[in-house]
Amino acid sequence: MRENTMIFEDRINNWDEVTDVVVIGSGFAGLSAAIEAHEAGASVIVLEKMKAYGGNSIISDGGIAAPGTNLQKKHGINDSADMMYKDMLKAGLGLNDPELVSVLVDNAKDTFEWSIDYLGVEYLDRVDVFGGHSVPRCYTAKNIAGATIIKKQIEKMNEFNMKVRFKSYSKNLIYSSDERICGVVVRDDYDYKNPEKGWDINIKAEKGVILASGGFGSDVAFRKAQDPRLSEKIDTTNKPFATAEVIKQAINAGAAPVQLSHIQLGPWASPDEKGYGVGPQFSEYIVFQYGVMINPVTGCRFVNELSDRKTLSDKLLSIGHPCVGLADGKAVEDSGWNIDSSIKKKVVRKFDTLEELASFYEIPHKNLEETLKKFNKSFEEGFDKSFGKPLIENAAPIVNTPYYGIRLWPKVHFTMGGIRINTNAQVMDLEGNIIKGLYAAGEVTGGVHGASRLGSCSITDCLVFGRIAGKNTASISTC
Amino acid sequence: MRENTMIFEDRINNWDEVTDVVVIGSGFAGLSAAIEAHEAGASVIVLEKMKAYGGNSIISDGGIAAPGTNLQKKHGINDSADMMYKDMLKAGLGLNDPELVSVLVDNAKDTFEWSIDYLGVEYLDRVDVFGGHSVPRCYTAKNIAGATIIKKQIEKMNEFNMKVRFKSYSKNLIYSSDERICGVVVRDDYDYKNPEKGWDINIKAEKGVILASGGFGSDVAFRKAQDPRLSEKIDTTNKPFATAEVIKQAINAGAAPVQLSHIQLGPWASPDEKGYGVGPQFSEYIVFQYGVMINPVTGCRFVNELSDRKTLSDKLLSIGHPCVGLADGKAVEDSGWNIDSSIKKKVVRKFDTLEELASFYEIPHKNLEETLKKFNKSFEEGFDKSFGKPLIENAAPIVNTPYYGIRLWPKVHFTMGGIRINTNAQVMDLEGNIIKGLYAAGEVTGGVHGASRLGSCSITDCLVFGRIAGKNTASISTC
Repeated sequence: MRENTMIFEDRINNWDEVTDVVVIGSGFAGLSAAIEAHEAGASVIVLEKMKAYGGNSIISDGGIAAPGTNLQKKHGINDSADMMYKDMLKAGLGLNDPELVSVLVDNAKDTFEWSIDYLGVEYLDRVDVFGGHSVPRCYTAKNIAGATIIKKQIEKMNEFNMKVRFKSYSKNLIYSSDERICGVVVRDDYDYKNPEKGWDINIKAEKGVILASGGFGSDVAFRKAQDPRLSEKIDTTNKPFATAEVIKQAINAGAAPVQLSHIQLGPWASPDEKGYGVGPQFSEYIVFQYGVMINPVTGCRFVNELSDRKTLSDKLLSIGHPCVGLADGKAVEDSGWNIDSSIKKKVVRKFDTLEELASFYEIPHKNLEETLKKFNKSFEEGFDKSFGKPLIENAAPIVNTPYYGIRLWPKVHFTMGGIRINTNAQVMDLEGNIIKGLYAAGEVTGGVHGASRLGSCSITDCLVFGRIAGKNTASISTC
Repeated sequence: MRENTMIFEDRINNWDEVTDVVVIGSGFAGLSAAIEAHEAGASVIVLEKMKAYGGNSIISDGGIAAPGTNLQKKHGINDSADMMYKDMLKAGLGLNDPELVSVLVDNAKDTFEWSIDYLGVEYLDRVDVFGGHSVPRCYTAKNIAGATIIKKQIEKMNEFNMKVRFKSYSKNLIYSSDERICGVVVRDDYDYKNPEKGWDINIKAEKGVILASGGFGSDVAFRKAQDPRLSEKIDTTNKPFATAEVIKQAINAGAAPVQLSHIQLGPWASPDEKGYGVGPQFSEYIVFQYGVMINPVTGCRFVNELSDRKTLSDKLLSIGHPCVGLADGKAVEDSGWNIDSSIKKKVVRKFDTLEELASFYEIPHKNLEETLKKFNKSFEEGFDKSFGKPLIENAAPIVNTPYYGIRLWPKVHFTMGGIRINTNAQVMDLEGNIIKGLYAAGEVTGGVHGASRLGSCSITDCLVFGRIAGKNTASISTC
């Protein structure tokens, strides 16, 4: 049989286990779904293919967006669900599913409060504005870590005597004779480095299966089929197990895929370290704001450095090799950021003169001087004639030693596309009908973020739709 | 059973007919495939769901692109496959499958010559450059009609005693026990206005099935799932039967969908007529070049009118209602185009004064005057300060009565996305493996054009990959 295909119930010899709800994945969405399904009275099994809970969620920085919160009021910020809706559609280039966005923004405040009051998550006492949000509405979990939220979700599960079942890999969805998803074939004792290990068991899900398996940022073959630029030459900020097998199982079970080719890249990433790393702080908050991005082959700029993520990443990919992000000592000082660790790790490099920097990165020195001269003239002229980069407060001509450099090359960060759901988190087929017994939430779904996701909207998405999926699976469907 | 799903061979009671190759669709791609499969010695059945052959191909204007042709040499034009490759990738924003583009550009010249020497198609003695091509490489079939090519393909089929089978609707692909596509359930005597009519027959395809069923521009539910902006409020230049059932059948049979959300809109279209109509000649060759696009609510411009199709359409959709394209008498005269028919059909309207135009379209008159004054100043300043529109040769201030107007609102024109094929036109599944016995060519496939198709590259695509599919189905596979 082909991999990842659907299996019909009549080919199942026996059920090894029976439960009401099976949740695939133990990140933000999966744990929210499990908790709500339990609260609604269902028995729940949470499958996690790895040896620990949390998936990609646990390495996120714990930023969550919500409009109209008390924390905003305390800081005197006026905001509304409608304003957040508009921001998300603008960032998503209008490709977002408007109904799903409405559900997200309408439930964001309650869900944020739920995370505080019910789960006990603590947030920093600040409200930030991330790129693309029209007002500050982003909150950061204590320790600047998604792990802070995940741990509280696990604590709640422990209260309920619920456990995440590790090394349990979803292999196939099972389809009943009355046209529902009614279970999962699970590889037990699974080892992702040795997939032959372990044995298969059949778990019946009387009420339904919830897909909360995350995105496919690390699945080179799958992402490359959708965006041929994203070969193995492009790293990812995701963990290596962020792969597409559950998305494939869902599509093979009839689920409609939506917008799979919309994949977000982080242009702030450096090829001189693995994953997200330490470089982005320097590139995003110093280079993009105060510095310039240089094509080392020509010594010239090639883009307005304050463009959005998508524009910067697309430009980088189109020049075909890493660029050099450059800023001077004054910019580093004025920014207030401490970049010692990125210098120690040799991701950011410090040079006494511009010539040394040019020589290190093999940039034609004369051209680089010309480029900076031209850029610096913007401050006299009041306008960046070359690329129209806004001259922000505190920005100044790049003339003060030392000089700092970083190599930049985009990394896959988030997959906006996935399987189609309706506002009840029910999975929909290619005809626009629901697939009974099948639910999904979080990065595995598509349509919420359209062509580009705003920072801090992913956790909101996971919690809001995870909770909806959990509640509905427990109540709507009987397999 | 759910619609459009795959059927297993062991559930088929009897085969009503047996052939080597079944081709679904009778447009450019399907007929090319049928002819080549026959030439390779296979017996072929061509299915067409409508009552006549030609699909959407027959209403195209017959433009085909190819590099390095004799016609180019005659006109002193230097071109190469490599130049065309780069143009296609640039237009496609790098999302094109590079291997498929290579096959297209490497075979374009031969295929163009095949259409002349083998099919007998006659082309106008001119080479045009359409937007996005870096040199003139576009040829237009006689009568400026895709029908000119289709008719020659049908003549060739007649020579071979091959017929297109009308009113034959593909309902399900059939999957054999040895994991191949081995046939099709066909609704015979199909009537798309009354799908209950007719009866089902099972056709066995010993060597394989070729999908050449075209795009899904008229399938509102399917396209809206991928791009929620494209509701029933958006018309299409396609025929109403350009729907997604065969794409859905392929996906349900395991085919990988690629880039379904990349759907091309024509910003030159008018909501005051159906389909492609007569307006685009005025908007594309006069308004965009010499005139301005006005938001009737504000009386202001909102875009560089010489932007690409995608930018113009996206801007129009984001203002949320039709704009007014405006040009003056001098522009119409200088352009050399005759727009009498579009005036007769009241798609383009003529006004003695600007005030009359403003009043007719309910544009704030003062604002419109301001807008034109500002735009006209560009010619003194040598630069369009508002939107950076290039001031092309012959362009002049908009001051000469009469004034002409057209309402513009984008229409769905082409679907870049579709099912994934390899360079042999074999359909690939989600794992990147081929699905044995299943081939595809033309608009039903995805990946060739990436995010945006260049004008005149579709016919090249259909002929090149149609021929490859036909040859390979006849030779590679035995079911």
